[in-house]
Amino acid sequence: MTGSDHLAFTDEAAASSRAVRPADLRRHNLALVLRHVSASEGLTRAELARLTALTKGTISSLAEELIERGFLVESAPEPQGRLGRPPTGLLALNGDSHCGIGIEINIDYLAVSVADLRGRIRFHMAEGRDNRIGRRTKVLDRAARAVRDAARIASSAGLQPAGVSLAVPGPVDVERGILMRAPGLAWTDVPVVDELADRLADLGLPVLAENEANLAALGELWLGIGSTAGDYVYVSGESGVGGGIIVDGALVRGSRGSAGEIGHIVVDPNGPPCTCGGRGCLGQMAGQETLFRLAGLEPDQATRQVAGEPALDELLAMLGRGDLQALEAVDKVAHALGIALADIVNLLDPDSIILGGIYAPLSPWLIGPIVESLGRQDILGGRNPVAIHSSLLGADAAVRGAATLVVKQLMSGSVAETQGAVQPHLAGGQM
Amino acid sequence: MTGSDHLAFTDEAAASSRAVRPADLRRHNLALVLRHVSASEGLTRAELARLTALTKGTISSLAEELIERGFLVESAPEPQGRLGRPPTGLLALNGDSHCGIGIEINIDYLAVSVADLRGRIRFHMAEGRDNRIGRRTKVLDRAARAVRDAARIASSAGLQPAGVSLAVPGPVDVERGILMRAPGLAWTDVPVVDELADRLADLGLPVLAENEANLAALGELWLGIGSTAGDYVYVSGESGVGGGIIVDGALVRGSRGSAGEIGHIVVDPNGPPCTCGGRGCLGQMAGQETLFRLAGLEPDQATRQVAGEPALDELLAMLGRGDLQALEAVDKVAHALGIALADIVNLLDPDSIILGGIYAPLSPWLIGPIVESLGRQDILGGRNPVAIHSSLLGADAAVRGAATLVVKQLMSGSVAETQGAVQPHLAGGQM
Repeated sequence: MTGSDHLAFTDEAAASSRAVRPADLRRHNLALVLRHVSASEGLTRAELARLTALTKGTISSLAEELIERGFLVESAPEPQGRLGRPPTGLLALNGDSHCGIGIEINIDYLAVSVADLRGRIRFHMAEGRDNRIGRRTKVLDRAARAVRDAARIASSAGLQPAGVSLAVPGPVDVERGILMRAPGLAWTDVPVVDELADRLADLGLPVLAENEANLAALGELWLGIGSTAGDYVYVSGESGVGGGIIVDGALVRGSRGSAGEIGHIVVDPNGPPCTCGGRGCLGQMAGQETLFRLAGLEPDQATRQVAGEPALDELLAMLGRGDLQALEAVDKVAHALGIALADIVNLLDPDSIILGGIYAPLSPWLIGPIVESLGRQDILGGRNPVAIHSSLLGADAAVRGAATLVVKQLMSGSVAETQGAVQPHLAGGQM
Repeated sequence: MTGSDHLAFTDEAAASSRAVRPADLRRHNLALVLRHVSASEGLTRAELARLTALTKGTISSLAEELIERGFLVESAPEPQGRLGRPPTGLLALNGDSHCGIGIEINIDYLAVSVADLRGRIRFHMAEGRDNRIGRRTKVLDRAARAVRDAARIASSAGLQPAGVSLAVPGPVDVERGILMRAPGLAWTDVPVVDELADRLADLGLPVLAENEANLAALGELWLGIGSTAGDYVYVSGESGVGGGIIVDGALVRGSRGSAGEIGHIVVDPNGPPCTCGGRGCLGQMAGQETLFRLAGLEPDQATRQVAGEPALDELLAMLGRGDLQALEAVDKVAHALGIALADIVNLLDPDSIILGGIYAPLSPWLIGPIVESLGRQDILGGRNPVAIHSSLLGADAAVRGAATLVVKQLMSGSVAETQGAVQPHLAGGQM
């Protein structure tokens, strides 16, 4: 316990402007049981009672409600109780009831995922498409079709879709469901939630939207390396450079939803101009296009391919055989990342940095120079230096995070509200 | 309500690893009553019941306990109840019971403050001293004498000191009470809490230490402009450049206690070398020494004076009469600040920036260029641009924040624990 931890107590009281009452207790305890079960492969009622310090009677009542709502499932009790205890079933998350649908519209691909309550991805589809060309309405039509396909496949597997979460490559006004600015797509102030919800009106599903880098950071938290990474900044190399910040297990969105836009940290004030109006931003110095160009690769703009192969595969092959130009290109990117990450570490002091997107497969060549750069500029002289991890989910992090966000909200929202499974905190035209 | 707000519910349940029980309810509600009273000039029991949605009986019981502990005081009831209501007194924070002592050891001054429960500063003393020269033990002796003087003055005013909070110019390991690194003082790994607590052993007061920029950010939150600034980054120009980050009304300390060390954001990778090992750090480009030198002022290193006047006063006079060299110097500093603040805004997306330390009196010359620089590089194209405020507390922010931290912890800690007024979460030798 430290002084500042302690301050949280009063601040928490201030944040909840009303008193705690018995109904709040039950909601809190429902969520608590769900969390403990989520973190396990299955728990008995007795184990839950011990973990939560609630009575077995209370646990039984909470479990009954959660089973009835389709959140928990109970395995058949063993015929003989272990060690003479009375026979009791294991409570686990119900992987065969509800699901969430994640859909990602990115600059050069479209992807869709279906996640069940256990966080398992039950369906996944990704297709390369240059979404910068062609009309926006066509892109949204295609996204809606992908959601519709995913919902049909989920239903045929007995899963009930609870909502749709859309990942887009730019900051989102979450309350209004508006993608504010995605320079990569040349989209500005697009009401993406309404656009998608209108196209899916017959499904009756709530829709939300969020920046893909934020969803990727959450994806790593729930499904990837984030759960053991402490506070971290997720850094994603794609067409630009994006990022998401996790502090105390929660996403830091910022006042306008644009926290984590690390692609616009200035690496060199005399560098090339950036779409944001600055010069020498990280995205210009370390994004995918710059990296490929420095390595002498000139992929087709639409397909990101070089002679029929993905440019990234070609770059990895060059690095594997020690190609000097490729090694120098990655070194330059690592140098730019090192400067920006030192700024991030000095500002936020996270436990970890997670390298995602194309930086994940490139991490064997990136981590060494980055660690060196951070070490050179560590104001604490090497005390507990920040850990650098490679993403486990790679390019799927955002869409998997999006699908999982729906089921996480379903579970927390449904115990927070007393109404059924529809989640009123998901923004969207269907509310 | 947004999607990510909503996630906090499950995360909160996860953070508190046990269930909520009736005793927790009472602690929560005690803290809640204190918060409501703190935010007011005085409230009746009926007003408190309405604000908290608790019954009047519960409010009376909570109020009785808080009066008994010396936290609240009740004014005499009006002889006639207003509007026919039964007569009832107003409950307010008791400004005449406990107090906190803040002490700041900075590079070129020593300051001490005494704050009462109402957040009023009851005693304040600051003296210019070059704490880089002379032995560390002498500096700590002088700080202990200042605390002793403050405690004596507080006692003679009927205030009971509850603890001592030490502000130092560098990141602190709060749990161990160690100042890890203060390049400005050339202090490394100094157990400042034990050193100060040993010197004050007879007073029997708990002691904590924290980075002065973090305490200044909290000072602005509690006593200055921070309470209406939303999420903000406090930026302090002194011998170096320091900072503190407030998100959701709480300090972001980081994994090692060094969050907010914005003095080491790289402004120009080809700039002059910095003590941190980097080049062109903000502290080098925009700190007090650089500013004075650029303005043609060469203050005495020990006293920061030019011909018997504080260098800052001389600089302000030069700016006032339109001295070109001074104006250019401030412009250069504003340019460097603009680059670093754009990085901060893109990374954290705060509602506000608060300019503190010497930047507060210089803000008339700084804010224009900073706003322009941020606008040029705003990834959201001017939507709700970040607000730039000037600190209300100036150089006193840290020591006032330190003194107030003690009374804030006393109030939240004392209702969190069931034991009396001593606060076991303050680190220190007296525990």
